[in-house]
Amino acid sequence: MRVPEFVPAEAVLSGQTADVYFAHTLEILRREGLNPMATMEVFPGRSGILCGMEEVRALLSRVLPEDNREVWALPEGEAMGRREVALRITAPYQSYGLYETAIAGILAHCSGWATAARQCVEVARGIPIVSFGARHVHPSVAGIMDYSAIVGGCAGCSSSSGAALAGTRPSGTMPHALILLMGDTVVATRAFDRHMPPDTPRISLVDTFKDETEESLRVAEALGDRLNSVRLDTPAERGGVTVDLVKEVRARLDLAGFSHVRIFVSGGIDPERIVRFLENGAPVDGFGVGSYISDARPIDFTADLHEVDGRPVAKRGRTPGITPNPRLKRIL
Amino acid sequence: MRVPEFVPAEAVLSGQTADVYFAHTLEILRREGLNPMATMEVFPGRSGILCGMEEVRALLSRVLPEDNREVWALPEGEAMGRREVALRITAPYQSYGLYETAIAGILAHCSGWATAARQCVEVARGIPIVSFGARHVHPSVAGIMDYSAIVGGCAGCSSSSGAALAGTRPSGTMPHALILLMGDTVVATRAFDRHMPPDTPRISLVDTFKDETEESLRVAEALGDRLNSVRLDTPAERGGVTVDLVKEVRARLDLAGFSHVRIFVSGGIDPERIVRFLENGAPVDGFGVGSYISDARPIDFTADLHEVDGRPVAKRGRTPGITPNPRLKRIL
Amino acid sequence: MRVPEFVPAEAVLSGQTADVYFAHTLEILRREGLNPMATMEVFPGRSGILCGMEEVRALLSRVLPEDNREVWALPEGEAMGRREVALRITAPYQSYGLYETAIAGILAHCSGWATAARQCVEVARGIPIVSFGARHVHPSVAGIMDYSAIVGGCAGCSSSSGAALAGTRPSGTMPHALILLMGDTVVATRAFDRHMPPDTPRISLVDTFKDETEESLRVAEALGDRLNSVRLDTPAERGGVTVDLVKEVRARLDLAGFSHVRIFVSGGIDPERIVRFLENGAPVDGFGVGSYISDARPIDFTADLHEVDGRPVAKRGRTPGITPNPRLKRIL
Amino acid sequence: MRVPEFVPAEAVLSGQTADVYFAHTLEILRREGLNPMATMEVFPGRSGILCGMEEVRALLSRVLPEDNREVWALPEGEAMGRREVALRITAPYQSYGLYETAIAGILAHCSGWATAARQCVEVARGIPIVSFGARHVHPSVAGIMDYSAIVGGCAGCSSSSGAALAGTRPSGTMPHALILLMGDTVVATRAFDRHMPPDTPRISLVDTFKDETEESLRVAEALGDRLNSVRLDTPAERGGVTVDLVKEVRARLDLAGFSHVRIFVSGGIDPERIVRFLENGAPVDGFGVGSYISDARPIDFTADLHEVDGRPVAKRGRTPGITPNPRLKRIL
Amino acid sequence: MRVPEFVPAEAVLSGQTADVYFAHTLEILRREGLNPMATMEVFPGRSGILCGMEEVRALLSRVLPEDNREVWALPEGEAMGRREVALRITAPYQSYGLYETAIAGILAHCSGWATAARQCVEVARGIPIVSFGARHVHPSVAGIMDYSAIVGGCAGCSSSSGAALAGTRPSGTMPHALILLMGDTVVATRAFDRHMPPDTPRISLVDTFKDETEESLRVAEALGDRLNSVRLDTPAERGGVTVDLVKEVRARLDLAGFSHVRIFVSGGIDPERIVRFLENGAPVDGFGVGSYISDARPIDFTADLHEVDGRPVAKRGRTPGITPNPRLKRIL
Amino acid sequence: MRVPEFVPAEAVLSGQTADVYFAHTLEILRREGLNPMATMEVFPGRSGILCGMEEVRALLSRVLPEDNREVWALPEGEAMGRREVALRITAPYQSYGLYETAIAGILAHCSGWATAARQCVEVARGIPIVSFGARHVHPSVAGIMDYSAIVGGCAGCSSSSGAALAGTRPSGTMPHALILLMGDTVVATRAFDRHMPPDTPRISLVDTFKDETEESLRVAEALGDRLNSVRLDTPAERGGVTVDLVKEVRARLDLAGFSHVRIFVSGGIDPERIVRFLENGAPVDGFGVGSYISDARPIDFTADLHEVDGRPVAKRGRTPGITPNPRLKRIL
Repeated sequence: MRVPEFVPAEAVLSGQTADVYFAHTLEILRREGLNPMATMEVFPGRSGILCGMEEVRALLSRVLPEDNREVWALPEGEAMGRREVALRITAPYQSYGLYETAIAGILAHCSGWATAARQCVEVARGIPIVSFGARHVHPSVAGIMDYSAIVGGCAGCSSSSGAALAGTRPSGTMPHALILLMGDTVVATRAFDRHMPPDTPRISLVDTFKDETEESLRVAEALGDRLNSVRLDTPAERGGVTVDLVKEVRARLDLAGFSHVRIFVSGGIDPERIVRFLENGAPVDGFGVGSYISDARPIDFTADLHEVDGRPVAKRGRTPGITPNPRLKRIL
Repeated sequence: MRVPEFVPAEAVLSGQTADVYFAHTLEILRREGLNPMATMEVFPGRSGILCGMEEVRALLSRVLPEDNREVWALPEGEAMGRREVALRITAPYQSYGLYETAIAGILAHCSGWATAARQCVEVARGIPIVSFGARHVHPSVAGIMDYSAIVGGCAGCSSSSGAALAGTRPSGTMPHALILLMGDTVVATRAFDRHMPPDTPRISLVDTFKDETEESLRVAEALGDRLNSVRLDTPAERGGVTVDLVKEVRARLDLAGFSHVRIFVSGGIDPERIVRFLENGAPVDGFGVGSYISDARPIDFTADLHEVDGRPVAKRGRTPGITPNPRLKRIL
Repeated sequence: MRVPEFVPAEAVLSGQTADVYFAHTLEILRREGLNPMATMEVFPGRSGILCGMEEVRALLSRVLPEDNREVWALPEGEAMGRREVALRITAPYQSYGLYETAIAGILAHCSGWATAARQCVEVARGIPIVSFGARHVHPSVAGIMDYSAIVGGCAGCSSSSGAALAGTRPSGTMPHALILLMGDTVVATRAFDRHMPPDTPRISLVDTFKDETEESLRVAEALGDRLNSVRLDTPAERGGVTVDLVKEVRARLDLAGFSHVRIFVSGGIDPERIVRFLENGAPVDGFGVGSYISDARPIDFTADLHEVDGRPVAKRGRTPGITPNPRLKRIL
Repeated sequence: MRVPEFVPAEAVLSGQTADVYFAHTLEILRREGLNPMATMEVFPGRSGILCGMEEVRALLSRVLPEDNREVWALPEGEAMGRREVALRITAPYQSYGLYETAIAGILAHCSGWATAARQCVEVARGIPIVSFGARHVHPSVAGIMDYSAIVGGCAGCSSSSGAALAGTRPSGTMPHALILLMGDTVVATRAFDRHMPPDTPRISLVDTFKDETEESLRVAEALGDRLNSVRLDTPAERGGVTVDLVKEVRARLDLAGFSHVRIFVSGGIDPERIVRFLENGAPVDGFGVGSYISDARPIDFTADLHEVDGRPVAKRGRTPGITPNPRLKRIL
Repeated sequence: MRVPEFVPAEAVLSGQTADVYFAHTLEILRREGLNPMATMEVFPGRSGILCGMEEVRALLSRVLPEDNREVWALPEGEAMGRREVALRITAPYQSYGLYETAIAGILAHCSGWATAARQCVEVARGIPIVSFGARHVHPSVAGIMDYSAIVGGCAGCSSSSGAALAGTRPSGTMPHALILLMGDTVVATRAFDRHMPPDTPRISLVDTFKDETEESLRVAEALGDRLNSVRLDTPAERGGVTVDLVKEVRARLDLAGFSHVRIFVSGGIDPERIVRFLENGAPVDGFGVGSYISDARPIDFTADLHEVDGRPVAKRGRTPGITPNPRLKRIL
Repeated sequence: MRVPEFVPAEAVLSGQTADVYFAHTLEILRREGLNPMATMEVFPGRSGILCGMEEVRALLSRVLPEDNREVWALPEGEAMGRREVALRITAPYQSYGLYETAIAGILAHCSGWATAARQCVEVARGIPIVSFGARHVHPSVAGIMDYSAIVGGCAGCSSSSGAALAGTRPSGTMPHALILLMGDTVVATRAFDRHMPPDTPRISLVDTFKDETEESLRVAEALGDRLNSVRLDTPAERGGVTVDLVKEVRARLDLAGFSHVRIFVSGGIDPERIVRFLENGAPVDGFGVGSYISDARPIDFTADLHEVDGRPVAKRGRTPGITPNPRLKRIL
């Protein structure tokens, strides 16, 4: 994955998004004429996949004095241990004190998403996972959520903004709305086939009106070789997608000569269900994962001062001085 | 609370943050010359406090044709039941189909935060709760998260952007960083007192260097009547803030004649711990709640078409036609 | 319910089905010239609904000497407490000692079935339950099992032999086999309608080939007013019958003007699932219950001698002498 | 074990014991002039020991046309997997459709009993298990239940009819009734010894009146070398048979010079208790198992049509066409 | 209960039994010339029944200067709350500092025993409880343990030393040893009857050699009206004493005309088993409780200085100054 | 460890501490003129570390006739299995029957303490454990409790009497009382240093007034090289001693150049917490264990007669005759 160009938002740079007490602190320090060199260490409260560091780097490179700074960090996408120092900043405190809230928040939210994505990818035995959760988060973070999912190992995502950040193309099938508006799955699938560019894969959603096996055979007969996949998204009201349903759709497609048609499964997918599908031999060719990734809890990060003008310091409960971590790389 | 002026972001209006299959759907419909009047209903997957509806209203008022639309909704901040219809849009589908992702995402994320806030407020017996979680979410949503917490019942929040949206002032005490930089809690508290405007309450953070009871008495002696509160934020490494600690600080402050000093508690607070403090008689005057609110899981919303050009429709698993809900109010 | 004419089987009367040690005992007593008046009490190991007593009565009336017997019992279909004496026989021991095995076995097996049936009936709020479990028991007891289910409160049963014992008509819809053989649900339903007598209700099984809602509408359109019910029997591989499926079938039938068509539900039904359907408002008009009733564990009965020639006796662990139970009625 | 001669009952052949809808189906097919070649597959809902196949074979050999039938099956007594096809019938449907209920019922009930018996045998380390449960089932199935227990591995059974089917002799000790009638265990044991043929083992039941150790020594002294075993059947009211009790009886018999007397244990025995006896070194020489085997839940079987006139068919949830199973043997 | 004369042991007075750091402290204070008036408060770590206070009073009355002391306490046998101050001593510290270990230890151990006894008494519905646990504790505390049990509500105890402290007579039946030595329960019971004074109740232990019911009848016949009770103490190896055993012994004694013979139950008795006996209607006339009382965990007490020469003091975690408790009475 | 000189107490020898029924038994036997040679076996109800045998040996050597006795036992401090015979006495019954209560009680109580101590020692990886629980037991057993803890593996104990029995010196630091009386930890530590002999280690208790890290540095600076250890005993009200606290104190002491100062931890220590400290790398140099050892439940012992005048006997539930145990050694 190419590193995207993160541009700090104006509201972040101005301190609008910060906890107000950092603004107070900056004002007090300025009035007291204090601007010591300070070393801040940032670590996560639980283990996971680090994400957001590139965005943090973009912010720091903008605000720290170029000739008086030293920043060390773990790389984007790395596994990190519980309470392992993931970022260490040394610079005049006034240059970055205001951004503690933003730095911790970017790392917390992005690492939460990337870690959940990785949990899915790890159990999927190479079957691609696509992030489908844009609809569960505020649109201001839909893109960065999908980007984090791809950092965590997803093969793609559904939002254009996420795909743009990750330097890829968004993945899309068709929504139930299209089929409901056109009144029939075959009609909708034919229209999709007629108007979409040839390199957009034809994936038909087959649970809207009829039984999934019947509809799968109907769209396969309608599109023939051009049909790439069917997507099963059976709602919970109908028992959700089951292992047996996938097997049966596969068997009936094969019996009818449509072995080339792949089966894509979505709807409430999480690592436990992925394991259940795979351990029971369900022939799934791809999973769409929504809320398990998008709704993942952030991994809270803590930022602590450990040196002030070369003196080891720490609040009660922490150990004064630099915490050694040979895995850190200098990034600024 | 005054209704804020929500302004739809350009990336939302352009469809950048949408699932790409909605862009595909719009293009197919346009090429097919289809733009039926369509009624979409939106409902939550679990019960909670509705939040985000004002921002959704702002988006819809911008995109729906003024003379051909009808939008009904539950009000911001209302309790909503599991699967209760919270929003119903009737308008030409092409005018709003692209925004299904954003509408669901705004409601999901904001309702998740507001609901968690409400859970804290409900058990706090009137003791004010301040939202302290900006540091756990991406700065792009720090403000809207804090706004949602206040919709849920919080008395205030720590981020300037959240306070601006909610039409209030941000709440701040002092960070550990200020004390570590100045080397002593009393010195830092005196500096705060010297430079902050008189209407900013003097709240001293008393767990940085010394035992909380000792430090509380030191800052109370230093500021006397001007001291508003002490904040206890004992880290988990030292056992966190306990019921007994609050009682002892209160007793020692009272013994020394500082009954006017209030006690504010933060650090890992959630409804269960609030209950434990209050049921065991800990004399807390305010709670700061961070990750319980900021890290709350979104409440996923589902959007379904239920009528197309006056005909009842629904996908399998849902019931065709309008779902009656007398609690809805017309908002557009 | 009319009391059926139970006729003791030859294998029972000859002692073939008995534990062989009773045959030994009889032989020893005869050789020793012993035939005391003995009182045997029979009681269940757990509470439940008593069933089988009529068949036991038929056996005893055949073997006990008419002028030297006294038999007291609880009536068929009564609730009985744990370890409550349900049957007391006083007669010369040689006349009945051989039948202890059969008496205990009839009561155990029948009471097990009746009790399970009652558990379903008790939670069904008056909605009829039909016993469908003949296929899970040996055909030698299919009839008595269904009879016991009706004693327990079922409205009917599927086996002809069970219905004959209970003095009613067997209940039947149509099997999946008929539909698979004829290739289409509507074709099979029309054939049923053509050939069955008018007083046989037309109940169509709607989960064989197509989605249940689609098929329900097809058969309703085909038979119109003559259609009595649809039966939902969705297999576990498709998530089974859910609350939401029943609601949706009802809604779609009503929308299409088929409010007179009733909904009958089968497939893995037990009291817990009946409660779930009813508490969640699923509009079910009848339940078919199979293995919950047919596979019920017998309620083991114990038979103890408590008096021999007027002397109180008992083995260790039991109390000598007659155990009073005012609920008993004399039956022979 | 020799294969018994099963003779189909008249009530089975006439369809009396069948679900009535199969009678309806047959009538409809006849009126429609349909009698296709149909392949039915039968499989169990959980794994276990297959039993009842010999009785099913007897039924099918009676009803299928000799020149137009093909039946494949797993052998009686084999382990079978969950949902593994255990029986496949190909023949004109009218010849066997009526017997689906009986076929499934025989296999379900018998396999349930055989499987429970096997569970006991598997943990008993070669110590013989005798089926004692005739008193817990309806006498119409007492024999077939005991036969199934022996198919599952039991060394014998207590009912004469079960022993007859299995080609063995019934096992019997003496009932509490004999001892209560004669008033003393030694008196009853002497009478047994006097009147029973020499090849019937002398097994004395020693918990009726006195402490088991005292009674064991009394009967051993009375019969000397002719005493084969004592049976411990202590009731639950006295704590049941415990590991320590068996050890103590053994030790006291040995101390008194009766090492040849064996110890047989009964009363609420199940695999868990067998394991506890053996793991704690209780010197048991035989177990009598009652309700654990006789009250075992049937293993429900499902029968599905998979081919009609050579065409693969299946209802939703099943895969059309023959399901390969190389373990099947042709039996007709 | 009369208050016993407690006499402090020499090893306590000399400080031999104390934690050595109190000896060090006394030496340091003497060398520094410090002997302030100090107030020590003593409270339990959990709620329970206070016991040991009389022994503590005896110790303090011996060591505190008569003209310069004030001691307040809860009375012996009172219920005390968790962390409720149970004892407050004000005196020159050198006079009592050495005895903190002994004071806390006496209260802890005795209150543990008394509390366990009370738990038995509370559920026993007036049926007397006798403390039988002397054999589970070191003989140096056997007497004080039994005394504490009686303070907790027991009707008596088995040790002579405990009875002496409590001003009562020890309760005794007969041990298994007597019966084993004499070879028969009736022989032993007759010997007991022959040699014991008439006012010692004849209680026969009936589980040594024969079944309890048989033995009960034998001893009742042997002693007739002089038999006061039978004691059931069935070992765990024989299933322990069960509800049904007690009922059966009662029934068989009554049938034989021995209604005056009472039933005393021992062996692993605890509150849970007492409840089970009584809720199931077992006609028990007395319980012997051993390890539940004797092995009870001590209720740890904490001793804190709260005032030194009139100044409120406390260590971290405690509140300085006197803790008000209106329930305290002045005892010295 | 040297074997201490146990001297039987007068109250034991006189039978005062015995269950009174042994006194009765002795009187009956004397009056009957019975004094058979009897063999008694004593075994524990659960596995553990045997303790108290030396004290029992002292008692038996005093009371048994020297020329007519044989006593076999497991050695003090050995592991013993559940129900393994740990002591076998053969002598005229009248010489020892009265002491069954004392023998069982000594073994039960002492083995309970020794076993709990061993559980701590086993998980402590060589870090010394000191018994601190004298304050939780009656002073009459404070010494024997501490002796048992040392038999179980403790490195020392706090009571003078325990140390005397074990032939070692008592371990002591300083109590909170000393610090509260002198008003400051440094002042108290300096006084301790001034007055205690040079070979008493200087261990300062650092949680009384100030934060533990601050106080540790203060006392280290005050005593320099003479400071042996700091003791952490943080009360539960302040979260207890945590892993992180120990690490932080160590780090701050090291940073300040006090690497020689050791860290001793006390307060609610048990095996589970020891494991947690060690598995999480807390640099603890010693543990003080109080109630886990002192409040341990006794391990109940049972004493049974197995031979009388050479005849094997036993009560029901036990096996007559000597129980072989090759691990026993002859001790008298």
